[in-house]
Amino acid sequence: MVTIDDVARLAGLSKSTVSRVINNYPHVSPAKKQKVYQAMDALGYVPNSSARSLRNKKTQMIAVLVPRLMNPFFGQLVESMEIEATKNGFQLLICQTMYSKETELGHLELLKMKQVDGMILASLENEWETVSEYLPYGPLVMCNEFEDSANIPIIKLDQIHGGYIATKHLLRQGHRKLAYCTGGHKSMVGQHRKIGFEKALKEHGLTFENRYGFFSAYSIEHGIEVFKQIHQMKDPPTAVFTGSDEVAAGIITGAKEYGVDVPGELSVIGFDNQVISKIMDPKISTVEQPIELMAQQSIQVLIETIKSKDFPKRERYEFPLELIIRESTVSGPLRAV
Amino acid sequence: MVTIDDVARLAGLSKSTVSRVINNYPHVSPAKKQKVYQAMDALGYVPNSSARSLRNKKTQMIAVLVPRLMNPFFGQLVESMEIEATKNGFQLLICQTMYSKETELGHLELLKMKQVDGMILASLENEWETVSEYLPYGPLVMCNEFEDSANIPIIKLDQIHGGYIATKHLLRQGHRKLAYCTGGHKSMVGQHRKIGFEKALKEHGLTFENRYGFFSAYSIEHGIEVFKQIHQMKDPPTAVFTGSDEVAAGIITGAKEYGVDVPGELSVIGFDNQVISKIMDPKISTVEQPIELMAQQSIQVLIETIKSKDFPKRERYEFPLELIIRESTVSGPLRAV
Repeated sequence: MVTIDDVARLAGLSKSTVSRVINNYPHVSPAKKQKVYQAMDALGYVPNSSARSLRNKKTQMIAVLVPRLMNPFFGQLVESMEIEATKNGFQLLICQTMYSKETELGHLELLKMKQVDGMILASLENEWETVSEYLPYGPLVMCNEFEDSANIPIIKLDQIHGGYIATKHLLRQGHRKLAYCTGGHKSMVGQHRKIGFEKALKEHGLTFENRYGFFSAYSIEHGIEVFKQIHQMKDPPTAVFTGSDEVAAGIITGAKEYGVDVPGELSVIGFDNQVISKIMDPKISTVEQPIELMAQQSIQVLIETIKSKDFPKRERYEFPLELIIRESTVSGPLRAV
Repeated sequence: MVTIDDVARLAGLSKSTVSRVINNYPHVSPAKKQKVYQAMDALGYVPNSSARSLRNKKTQMIAVLVPRLMNPFFGQLVESMEIEATKNGFQLLICQTMYSKETELGHLELLKMKQVDGMILASLENEWETVSEYLPYGPLVMCNEFEDSANIPIIKLDQIHGGYIATKHLLRQGHRKLAYCTGGHKSMVGQHRKIGFEKALKEHGLTFENRYGFFSAYSIEHGIEVFKQIHQMKDPPTAVFTGSDEVAAGIITGAKEYGVDVPGELSVIGFDNQVISKIMDPKISTVEQPIELMAQQSIQVLIETIKSKDFPKRERYEFPLELIIRESTVSGPLRAV
């Protein structure tokens, strides 16, 4: 154990000077401060009060893993989690995986190193088998993203139903040529939406045409690109299902640039009910996701698990999604076929 | 020091079973796993490999403090930081202060606890005097937010010039009744923009009228509210300077609802050059902030400081801002008075 005496010795200063520096008292010259910091660093010295806390079992810290914070869905998710965690006396660390398996494992080490008491996975890049190796070190909870085989609490949304109601709405408006547009990374969220999409098509005797599929769109810029590709098709789709309001906003922006009327010539439906869907012209029809409820429940379940120490334990929570009809999909009177 | 023997004893299982659980080998019953986890937790046992890392001097982790990730400016900032940190082999932890002094101090403890090697402050809620008490524990760098008295590297943007060029543009279009609209929390960024705003007014023989001031607007919803207040004025402003594209988008959305023409009856300028400024109708004139450059520089300076151990050290970096003229401020031909 490195002590304050070791630091004083290496710095060539008195113990009281070192103490003054550590406690940030005035009247210590910058040169002396520098020597103390260097000695502390060289020895890996941790002042006593910190070392005490370091030995405490609980950190009162939890972490959440998300793919990217630039996606406003996750911005909103971590804000709701932050509020709920603070309310319960926990500090929230936020980690981005940037869709990288390696980065995700790096963040999971926080649990192993006992730097956090538990972790919420709103991203899953590695196989569950790999991630589950961290279970001995503390509780894990999945939020939004999911993996059915995981023996942990999962708080998710009914994405199959979300994909289904959005697609059903487009079909009811008379569309038969539907494009499908989603973020490309492997994700159960995306897979379930696609199941809902295809289920609705099937009910109308249709099957999905691969040429109408766009599988790596998750920003406004990508939406503009998708529109350009659609615009060049000989037999273009008349409606687009998108996985996010941002992509939908991009498609609408592209359509405006090329003088294509939305929804007259092309209907576009978003996903998330982000603010952007309300301020675009035309306003974007979308699927409302109860992000706040999901975030609160995830924090509550994680904190309960930390306190009860009853893990791993299989639990499932699912919140419903709701269709919000605005202007981007309705050219004539609403039809309920 | 708690050992694996202690865990085995408390769990009432053999040492080899405990080891199998820790290393996540197959063929251990859920009931036994549970007992081992509970014993590990009760004793605060950290497996050896982790404990070893825990004693290592460097964590290869850095943290960034931001006010709120819902603000797309900070979403973009942390994304650019993430990319630069990864490139340099560092892991980035992201912490929101939610404009709370207490939460900010909680996050600064990460440095004291040696959980991170250094920290970037893109938020400053407490007085610098208070924050500087954490300097003995590791390097701090300020990014975007700033405090001139701080004896640390500061990487910022020339906000006085940003406020000045945006205001000058509005004045050149003939406006004399200018509203000023900004986020309300105390921040040097906001204060400097206001200095630039008033400097431009002064050059045209004008002084700021307090009734045209809105000091707690930082979202689309707030922008809509600001518009409603402006709309009710007897002698309303003809142009609005805003601190963010989101607020500008909100004002434009409000104006549309009430049938007020932008820019014909009301000019609105944003700040940030976020994607939203390009997809609104009318497109939003704004001030481009070189977020990516600022983020990269901040990470580089912090990592250099961590490696050189040469801190605290006063350094200043400043990047210029650029006016981007689009549709929301130009009703007639551009005037360069």
